[in-house]
Amino acid sequence: QAIVQAASTMSNATAKNKSIVVFSDDLDKAIASFVIANGAAAVGSKVSLFFTFWGLNMIKKQNPEPVSKGFMDKMFGFMMPRNSKKLKLSKMNMWGMGPKMIRNVMKNKKIESLESLIQQAHESGVEFIACTMSMDVMGVKKEELLDYVTFGGVAAYLERAEESNVNLFI
Amino acid sequence: QAIVQAASTMSNATAKNKSIVVFSDDLDKAIASFVIANGAAAVGSKVSLFFTFWGLNMIKKQNPEPVSKGFMDKMFGFMMPRNSKKLKLSKMNMWGMGPKMIRNVMKNKKIESLESLIQQAHESGVEFIACTMSMDVMGVKKEELLDYVTFGGVAAYLERAEESNVNLFI
Amino acid sequence: QAIVQAASTMSNATAKNKSIVVFSDDLDKAIASFVIANGAAAVGSKVSLFFTFWGLNMIKKQNPEPVSKGFMDKMFGFMMPRNSKKLKLSKMNMWGMGPKMIRNVMKNKKIESLESLIQQAHESGVEFIACTMSMDVMGVKKEELLDYVTFGGVAAYLERAEESNVNLFI
Repeated sequence: QAIVQAASTMSNATAKNKSIVVFSDDLDKAIASFVIANGAAAVGSKVSLFFTFWGLNMIKKQNPEPVSKGFMDKMFGFMMPRNSKKLKLSKMNMWGMGPKMIRNVMKNKKIESLESLIQQAHESGVEFIACTMSMDVMGVKKEELLDYVTFGGVAAYLERAEESNVNLFI
Repeated sequence: QAIVQAASTMSNATAKNKSIVVFSDDLDKAIASFVIANGAAAVGSKVSLFFTFWGLNMIKKQNPEPVSKGFMDKMFGFMMPRNSKKLKLSKMNMWGMGPKMIRNVMKNKKIESLESLIQQAHESGVEFIACTMSMDVMGVKKEELLDYVTFGGVAAYLERAEESNVNLFI
Repeated sequence: QAIVQAASTMSNATAKNKSIVVFSDDLDKAIASFVIANGAAAVGSKVSLFFTFWGLNMIKKQNPEPVSKGFMDKMFGFMMPRNSKKLKLSKMNMWGMGPKMIRNVMKNKKIESLESLIQQAHESGVEFIACTMSMDVMGVKKEELLDYVTFGGVAAYLERAEESNVNLFI
């Protein structure tokens, strides 16, 4: 009896978590990431999002204080979307018309915007981890990211994945 | 003895299923999705494919009855691949030459076409779920999708993922 | 007691492995794949990488012996990156400037190059499986791939995935 309980507790403890590596900063993939994260959080899963490479762009503050950067870091910053509102579509981007269309349609059909989805994720206790190696490569500073973001490397990701039964790379 | 059996039954019950979020409509990723799905179905796994965003394009009927749509929905329909035969490659698309090359090579090397892979998946009992939120955003109507497709939101996906030991996002 | 041990052994045996389908040959995704693989191997996981489609390009030898190929196979070979050093970025490729920038930044910040990451993965016992169906489609010959690569189809992948608790598609 005790054994069954122990087994079932263990399996519950390890079975409910979800982890997503958010690698892309395509608007459509960002929406997919947060819809899945929020859906899982809504049914009680602990969800960890690990933002790496381009994914960092969607957790940048809308109006950050200016930070001092070296030349290359500035170049990267200049070329990448400044925040979630500037993301492009993976297809049919059409020089920015595609994202506007999608955002308009979502508004008209009463679907939450990406920014609400992000806010909602935070409020539901979804964990936001920024990949420190990517921050280093792309010259992204801690001050530029949303205040509730935490920081970690691949070990932090693997720990979350180890305890999750659903692990996605988006 | 009973306990071991219970544990092993439980683990069998939850261990065999597979879920794939089919997000992309690139021909190459479509082929990968169905090869994995069919491979898993062949060894007895229950496989659920969740078609979201562009992924919806590969489960459109080849010759659908015309459906009436609003302006934006028509625009989206006009810009997206009409069905699986119109998919592009994620790389080397070369204005449509790439997909023709890949399809030709596959035919010459006696590898099933995407359309056969899809039909085979259906016949092996692979579950096709169309994401209703994406359908709403992209103006895709139920009548446009293959008859055996079912409909669901993120909750339907998460239920399948919860019971699967392999969960991919493609 | 014995039962608990059995259960825990079983769960250990099946819980530690990791599998990654390496589908893309984008430099950024290649780096992500190997950072995750090496991270997992470092904490004792058995990691299997299944290289399919474009992913094959990153496990090509730097200086292969010439192999004889048919016309279409030659065409594909001509259009695809010749090896890991020729990979492009998924974004901001800028006719090859993007990859050079990323590689430079990584060097300056003392992050391992993709080539070191690959070598390190091999030395840590990460398994490299080349997808034979993709090799067939894209005209890639065994002699062109790194000597320690093994060969398999979707069944080989599914076997690894079945025994893994983290399965990614990159």
